Amino acid sequence: MSKRGLSKKTRQMLLIKTIAEDPFLNDEELAEKFNVSVQTIRLDRMELKLPELRERIKAVAEDNYAKVRSIDVAEIVGELVDLELDKRGISILETTNKMTFGKTKVIRGDIIFAQANSLAIATIDAKVALTGVANIKYKLPVYAGQKLVAKAEVTRVRGNKKFVFVRTYVKQKEVFRGKFILVSLEAEDNNTDT
Amino acid sequence: MSKRGLSKKTRQMLLIKTIAEDPFLNDEELAEKFNVSVQTIRLDRMELKLPELRERIKAVAEDNYAKVRSIDVAEIVGELVDLELDKRGISILETTNKMTFGKTKVIRGDIIFAQANSLAIATIDAKVALTGVANIKYKLPVYAGQKLVAKAEVTRVRGNKKFVFVRTYVKQKEVFRGKFILVSLEAEDNNTDT
Repeated sequence: MSKRGLSKKTRQMLLIKTIAEDPFLNDEELAEKFNVSVQTIRLDRMELKLPELRERIKAVAEDNYAKVRSIDVAEIVGELVDLELDKRGISILETTNKMTFGKTKVIRGDIIFAQANSLAIATIDAKVALTGVANIKYKLPVYAGQKLVAKAEVTRVRGNKKFVFVRTYVKQKEVFRGKFILVSLEAEDNNTDT
Repeated sequence: MSKRGLSKKTRQMLLIKTIAEDPFLNDEELAEKFNVSVQTIRLDRMELKLPELRERIKAVAEDNYAKVRSIDVAEIVGELVDLELDKRGISILETTNKMTFGKTKVIRGDIIFAQANSLAIATIDAKVALTGVANIKYKLPVYAGQKLVAKAEVTRVRGNKKFVFVRTYVKQKEVFRGKFILVSLEAEDNNTDT
């Protein structure tokens, strides 16, 4: 299954296909996948005029921001790449050195929490939603440069309380999970689904 | 018990005493206590050369920062006004409009979490500590301008795991509580207290 030794032409064709299928792979992940250097991937992208991850995410996120009701989109930590209100949402956060604790070089827990919490709120179909309770677990340390993919799922609705389960991954490995109980402040039209 | 109608001299004497006893009252709280306007308190402070809250907090915090081992002090959200390693810690965060969700004017949950979490870490006597688990509850909404007083207590030590209970108050009312399990990464000298 090694892709080492692919001709440049073949690699570039596969690169287009790979990005079309999973637009959220960053250059490091693509380099790993094709067994070439990050520099090679960058040159390939430039030749093929494929935008970098940040641009690809932005393009996808635009549509989702229009759906959000419960939070100002600028307040979502990470980019919202999938959203079905009251069902599920996905956000991506590219971590940087600025987000680390200096002592450990590990991404701050409150950043990972903020991504998950703001995604949970964004996923809710309500004019306003506040966090009531959160039970969270940090499973693996995350380092600067790693890409956090948070997936939220609304698991239960009881009156104006909505239960949201968020799992956050780095390269398919779960690094964080949180169960949130959110209170939606839109009693007038949201209390029928008990 | 009303202090309305105190002579200016009496009020200023009481003001000095009050601030000496509780240096962490802000001008709004002092105004309420003395039943006068915030402006009056400010003028009193100027006449008496009493520094504003921010300065008073800083003065107290300096000493505590020297004790902190597990986190860079710049990474503590809020000012550390009390610290006894592996026992307890107190931090104060003056909230601002920048910390709110635009929709609700309520202080962001991740800010309140970050204060509590960084205080919990700072309270630990270890070279490095990471958050493993947190169970948190938001009890009352907090609005910009309110002063968050977070109090951490180390409740249990089991091997390299330390259990820290943080309660956060606004004017003596509990607005948030969180139970944190922190993992200290200093196996060499910290594993004896099981």
